[in-house]
Amino acid sequence: MLETTHSPTTPLSPPLAPKLVTTVRELRAAVRAARAAGCSIGLVPTMGALHEGHLSLARASRAECGFTVASIFVNPTQFAPHEDFDKYPRTLEADLQALASCHTDLVFAPQRDDVYPAGCSTAVEPPRVAQRWEGECRPGHFRGVATVVLKLFNLVQADVAFFGQKDYQQASVIRQMVRDLNVPLEIRVCPTVREPDGLAMSSRNRYLSVDQRSQAVAISRSLRLAAQLAADGQRQTAALVDTVRGVLAEAQIDRIDYVAVVDPDTLEPVVALSGPSVMLIAAHVGGTRLIDNWKI
Amino acid sequence: MLETTHSPTTPLSPPLAPKLVTTVRELRAAVRAARAAGCSIGLVPTMGALHEGHLSLARASRAECGFTVASIFVNPTQFAPHEDFDKYPRTLEADLQALASCHTDLVFAPQRDDVYPAGCSTAVEPPRVAQRWEGECRPGHFRGVATVVLKLFNLVQADVAFFGQKDYQQASVIRQMVRDLNVPLEIRVCPTVREPDGLAMSSRNRYLSVDQRSQAVAISRSLRLAAQLAADGQRQTAALVDTVRGVLAEAQIDRIDYVAVVDPDTLEPVVALSGPSVMLIAAHVGGTRLIDNWKI
Repeated sequence: MLETTHSPTTPLSPPLAPKLVTTVRELRAAVRAARAAGCSIGLVPTMGALHEGHLSLARASRAECGFTVASIFVNPTQFAPHEDFDKYPRTLEADLQALASCHTDLVFAPQRDDVYPAGCSTAVEPPRVAQRWEGECRPGHFRGVATVVLKLFNLVQADVAFFGQKDYQQASVIRQMVRDLNVPLEIRVCPTVREPDGLAMSSRNRYLSVDQRSQAVAISRSLRLAAQLAADGQRQTAALVDTVRGVLAEAQIDRIDYVAVVDPDTLEPVVALSGPSVMLIAAHVGGTRLIDNWKI
Repeated sequence: MLETTHSPTTPLSPPLAPKLVTTVRELRAAVRAARAAGCSIGLVPTMGALHEGHLSLARASRAECGFTVASIFVNPTQFAPHEDFDKYPRTLEADLQALASCHTDLVFAPQRDDVYPAGCSTAVEPPRVAQRWEGECRPGHFRGVATVVLKLFNLVQADVAFFGQKDYQQASVIRQMVRDLNVPLEIRVCPTVREPDGLAMSSRNRYLSVDQRSQAVAISRSLRLAAQLAADGQRQTAALVDTVRGVLAEAQIDRIDYVAVVDPDTLEPVVALSGPSVMLIAAHVGGTRLIDNWKI
């Protein structure tokens, strides 16, 4: 009987778990070693509770960079006091396994005090593109996001950082911050990953009951419908917004923070379509706030 | 007749002028080349109108780092509308000559639009240590300083940056910002350089008339006197402040923004001396606002 030989490209054993570090010192040592070995550094900043959206970023980094760092840190400063910081899902073991399957090299999962030691009081005042939409609904959110992301950029000193298009405004804020502060790194924004029925993947989807999960699909359905109308020639964004609101109303999604068609760079509202635009939604399904967007 | 030979350590020709670059692209290329040649990078951020204080920073960088970059940029965002941005001295030719004598390798003298292109709107919200003293007298000043300094740090990607102790609070703000935002560089604060009579060197000293120049020396004299009283056992900072105010009044310096004895780290006022402290002064001599400080 012949011995089975394993091709090195299809090992039967599970992929190696990424190295987990929790301190800045360990992080910097690991990145320095990778850099010294000639690797470019990719960073995937996350708050954990990873889903396929995050993993697509980890894979994109793996494809482009020699060494991929994923950070897992539920950043308190981007949550308002009434928001879901305390109940935000923490699933470190599962996250490490998932990142192993993407061949992520290093996971940086710091404690709060390592990121914000006593006396830490400098912040980033985010760019103008942060003001509307999420900025209005979640005061202070982008200040917290921009600050922690800049800190992570400085801690990891990556060459490239990967963000999801699902958080469209967040990606715009970070891209503009990088430009404005001359941060020496490149930003990649990867497509939104969706469930088979269209729901944008989100760590918060796990808050949804079965019924709410069925309701929630109306969000992406409404965006797709509006995009189709635009493709069919509808130039008036008010009509597109009405269509979206109609679909949401049918699904009994009645707590809508905003539905808007905006310029893809400035995020200012567009009245009549004349070039690429983005449709943005934020709406509540039960107690869960969901966002989504669609390029039109 | 023998030919004269020049020792390479004592050339008769003047030192080579530093390379002058004005664009981000040229700056980054020059720094990258120096880095590739194995040099560590030192940064001396200035607003030009260089005096011996600045040059001491350039020399400190030259002594510690393989490649020294001095930036010359009169940063508009750190001046209030009524302040002296327009009349701030611009002396580029003399500055280049002075830096040549310090063997500075590169001067980065960007235009305003290269530093703040249209749409640039992200800023640094400076740390708590920025709130009092200069922060109260010059609202927005440290926001402008912190933002431009972070931009310069990111542009140059230096290993070490050099600041003068004369701007004591500024150095504290920058040191804390670097800590809070995890900026990967070290800060050196070099001693204040003084005129023979004690006046702290400042680009703004050139605004002083001959009479004002004589008055201004009272600032450093008052600080030295207070430090002597403290060394002789006076623990009550109110008594030290009174002494300083007395000396300033004698010199007819009557527009005083603040005189304070503060904790060297937090810059909070100290009532009774129990450890190292710093005495801070800001006062106007004629139309010129001068600051100084003294460790006690």
